[in-house]
Amino acid sequence: MQLAALSHRTESEDSFVIDNTHVNIRFHSAKADVKEVTVLYTDNYLPLESVKAQKMAQIGSGQVQDHWGATLEAPYHRLKYTFVVEAQDGSKVIYGDRGISEYSQDAVMADGNYFKVPYLHEIDLTKTPDWVRDTVWYQIFPERFANGDKSNDPVGTKAWNPEDHPGREDFYGGDLQGVIDHLDYLQKLGVNGLYFCPIFKAPSNHKYDTNDYLEIDPAFGDKALFAKLVNEAHSRGMRIMLDAVFNHVGAASMQWQDVVKNGAKSRYRDWFHINKFPVEPFIDASKGEGEPNYDTFAFVGNMPKLNTANPEVQEYLLNIASYWVKYFDIDAWRLDVANEVDHHFWKRFHDELVKIKPDFYIVGEIWHSARPWLNGDQFSSVMNYPYTLQIEDHFFYGRLSAQALAERLTDQTMKYRDMTNQVMMNMLDSHDTARILTVAGGNQDLALQALAFEFMQQGSPCIYYGTEMGMAGGNDPDCRKPMDWSKEAGPVWERVHNIIAFRLAHKETLGRGSFRLTVTPEGLLQVVRQGTETITGLFNTTTKPITISDRPELSQLVKNNEILPNGFALFITK
Amino acid sequence: MQLAALSHRTESEDSFVIDNTHVNIRFHSAKADVKEVTVLYTDNYLPLESVKAQKMAQIGSGQVQDHWGATLEAPYHRLKYTFVVEAQDGSKVIYGDRGISEYSQDAVMADGNYFKVPYLHEIDLTKTPDWVRDTVWYQIFPERFANGDKSNDPVGTKAWNPEDHPGREDFYGGDLQGVIDHLDYLQKLGVNGLYFCPIFKAPSNHKYDTNDYLEIDPAFGDKALFAKLVNEAHSRGMRIMLDAVFNHVGAASMQWQDVVKNGAKSRYRDWFHINKFPVEPFIDASKGEGEPNYDTFAFVGNMPKLNTANPEVQEYLLNIASYWVKYFDIDAWRLDVANEVDHHFWKRFHDELVKIKPDFYIVGEIWHSARPWLNGDQFSSVMNYPYTLQIEDHFFYGRLSAQALAERLTDQTMKYRDMTNQVMMNMLDSHDTARILTVAGGNQDLALQALAFEFMQQGSPCIYYGTEMGMAGGNDPDCRKPMDWSKEAGPVWERVHNIIAFRLAHKETLGRGSFRLTVTPEGLLQVVRQGTETITGLFNTTTKPITISDRPELSQLVKNNEILPNGFALFITK
Repeated sequence: MQLAALSHRTESEDSFVIDNTHVNIRFHSAKADVKEVTVLYTDNYLPLESVKAQKMAQIGSGQVQDHWGATLEAPYHRLKYTFVVEAQDGSKVIYGDRGISEYSQDAVMADGNYFKVPYLHEIDLTKTPDWVRDTVWYQIFPERFANGDKSNDPVGTKAWNPEDHPGREDFYGGDLQGVIDHLDYLQKLGVNGLYFCPIFKAPSNHKYDTNDYLEIDPAFGDKALFAKLVNEAHSRGMRIMLDAVFNHVGAASMQWQDVVKNGAKSRYRDWFHINKFPVEPFIDASKGEGEPNYDTFAFVGNMPKLNTANPEVQEYLLNIASYWVKYFDIDAWRLDVANEVDHHFWKRFHDELVKIKPDFYIVGEIWHSARPWLNGDQFSSVMNYPYTLQIEDHFFYGRLSAQALAERLTDQTMKYRDMTNQVMMNMLDSHDTARILTVAGGNQDLALQALAFEFMQQGSPCIYYGTEMGMAGGNDPDCRKPMDWSKEAGPVWERVHNIIAFRLAHKETLGRGSFRLTVTPEGLLQVVRQGTETITGLFNTTTKPITISDRPELSQLVKNNEILPNGFALFITK
Repeated sequence: MQLAALSHRTESEDSFVIDNTHVNIRFHSAKADVKEVTVLYTDNYLPLESVKAQKMAQIGSGQVQDHWGATLEAPYHRLKYTFVVEAQDGSKVIYGDRGISEYSQDAVMADGNYFKVPYLHEIDLTKTPDWVRDTVWYQIFPERFANGDKSNDPVGTKAWNPEDHPGREDFYGGDLQGVIDHLDYLQKLGVNGLYFCPIFKAPSNHKYDTNDYLEIDPAFGDKALFAKLVNEAHSRGMRIMLDAVFNHVGAASMQWQDVVKNGAKSRYRDWFHINKFPVEPFIDASKGEGEPNYDTFAFVGNMPKLNTANPEVQEYLLNIASYWVKYFDIDAWRLDVANEVDHHFWKRFHDELVKIKPDFYIVGEIWHSARPWLNGDQFSSVMNYPYTLQIEDHFFYGRLSAQALAERLTDQTMKYRDMTNQVMMNMLDSHDTARILTVAGGNQDLALQALAFEFMQQGSPCIYYGTEMGMAGGNDPDCRKPMDWSKEAGPVWERVHNIIAFRLAHKETLGRGSFRLTVTPEGLLQVVRQGTETITGLFNTTTKPITISDRPELSQLVKNNEILPNGFALFITK
């Protein structure tokens, strides 16, 4: 047995309370090395003679590990447990809190080697908003979705041409009225969550360089209009998520301008991380202009980093965060560059917001694995790039085989608790990436196959505006073309609509059910979700049609028993 | 290579910020499987062409793993890094955030596979009080240390006889005046931290069944006397730690009595976890009396568990915790049954106390591995039982070989960050266990060898009152005999005094230095601490004298080049 590969970690994604009498447990071993894992468990204060044995299920197989799972009952809200691991080679050990022992009755009775869940506290449970499991998001880049009010168009606004390749500094006149005008459209499409890129006052078209977090950008509308948008969306059962950029401010902000002007004497000097006065603004190291003498986002001089350890800055940002929830009733914040802001701040942020709205949804922009933020005290979720980028590596780039994809995604789900996986924000493209149709080399079947695959995963799927219109676009800013409203009646629209409708018709199982990803003997990627029903997705990512004649209970539902390349089939059983 | 054994976890004991430009990194592999581990790292926003390579040191070898360590520099307060792992068998892989890849230039350049330290925030750093590294604790069980005031003796106080075997309900009259009278003694012994078992108003002799947390038990003294004790201790450079029992209250407490009397109508009904009214007090399941119909400590009816999720209870306990710090200037709390109280409460507790005293020391009573409490937001440290009990398993019980001990303790140190290991509270015995002399079968050389070994470890050592008098005693209550003041001039006292004096004379290295535990070819347990000097401890735990002729630089310091069974030698080089 590969003993060094055995692993389990208390109070983590490997051991998490699900209610005050149940705990979910995971265990890991080297791939194909272990035959059986059994948990021995009982109440902390009962003698070990009372231990019960529960066989763990093999819940997934990753790149180099097998993953095992079990749910244990703790009637007195306390638990001690240890693992009996039996290898394929017949060896048998106990894996416990103090180390590994050969299996023996003495080892079973070694109380000190039991892991403990000292008390199952409701208040410490990792909670995630339930409604997110029933939500399909639609991401709107407001400057490019629809122009509903020409009177607020910026000077030099270009004609609304979906064929344009937008430049970095271009404006097209999109605004909030444009969104309101299309709420019926969005409802018809079927989405029920709207995620907006920043809408606060800022000079750029993307508005990530906020100057005033308490004002709607005048080119987008005003507060009254935004309130109307929220109300009309809510009345259609749609949730609203806004984008907050709290890592840094725009250089044109009052605070930074005060520092530029007054230097070390500025009352805002401790709002930033300044290494030397006077500050040298507008240096951009990425353009070879040297390093700014203050901390910035990346090395970008006009995005000075905020000092979120300063209580004044904390109050300032928390007031902003609360303001839009309290007075405009938004349902979620997406937090830009969330990983570079301190945890201390995010814990306060979380506490303030759930006090106002207990089921508030907080999504961090984090491109890497994000365990430290997802323990229930900071974010509900993150933009799930390590997951979706690997989907793309298989479907679009051929960098990962189907087998490798199944393994890698399985490993990814093992990084988080079930309640976190179920509310992760899964998006294949966004304002920061090329559009899926483009990375699919213009192959719409392939793009929509990947989209359907995304919709079968755990987590809340998100569609980037225009995907349903079959829009293409390279990397930012090319992915930010004006919406192509001419394609509304098209075949792509219908297929995207069907994918959304399928997800929501089966939200109980797709939003909350168990998850298993494998490759079938025929070479199909297979997702199985089990909840109130069993839903199986089969995806042919090879270059040849695949016949599935040997699985009659499924194949009767497929025409000619055949799934074409870039094709997929979704089955419901039970 | 055993790929499934490779492990590293971001923002944990495997990756922790030590100041705003340095991060400590650990990596783990299967024992003797890997030849070399190299970290590749650079700033998050610099292209991967700028990566530097740093070889990791093998910092220890555990039961089934080798442990590797490195300190990385991050001049811009940001870091990305990945591991190049070269096996003994010549294979070479990259271990990164998204999985394992065969080593190649492409794999080196895969930015998404780099782990990230997004920004090194001072405010998120795990901080532990520096003074603890310079402290040797002395645990006082107040009822049994010294009787300085006969006027406050409880009715039926027994004669002060160190040869007695105390009963569960006996009183001997020990009190705070007795401690004050012996502060000079304690200073002469050399300890500089006093840890008191509970001193608040409670009916029992051990006072773990608190009735009033804001009163000193009258049999021990009063607040004026306690204030005097703290002041006199402080003036001698000694710190004071009190014992807080916040998991449960005594059944005689006002709050519980109100529930007993008024049932569901009691204003304290939500202070507890009550399953059914009326409550049935004083049932003790351990005595076969059935289960209490409310949650308790273990199944003990007269210790009802407090509902620390109730804000009223939180305020009540936080006021108590703050009171003794604010008005009596205590330096530390030891928290009884700390693992069974919710994390949410302990986070508030931590924040309140460090606000009053930034270098306050918080020690949880936790008998199992305690990572979830030791991330800087709750406790500074725990009573390090998983560590010290394994020391006893080797020295006293022969359950672990020297090699197994070295491996297990090495693994234990890998469970926590360096700053946590350095302030762990290490005690070989206490009021809850048999005394070391007794578990050493009366062999004083063996008992003191184990004590010296404890003093060479990372963490703050603690001596249980009477150890220096050569006191024996079985399990509780036998370990709580009245102090034997007749042995003060004895040879044991001198040896214990010398061990304490050695630790404090070399506190810079023993309190802060690196740590390596191995077994020498001759079979000696060897501890090497490196700091401002190098200190080596050799412990003969075999039954035969061991000659260490082949290590001249050390052996010249030992008489006849020989270390006797139960003997040890401490060397200083540099």
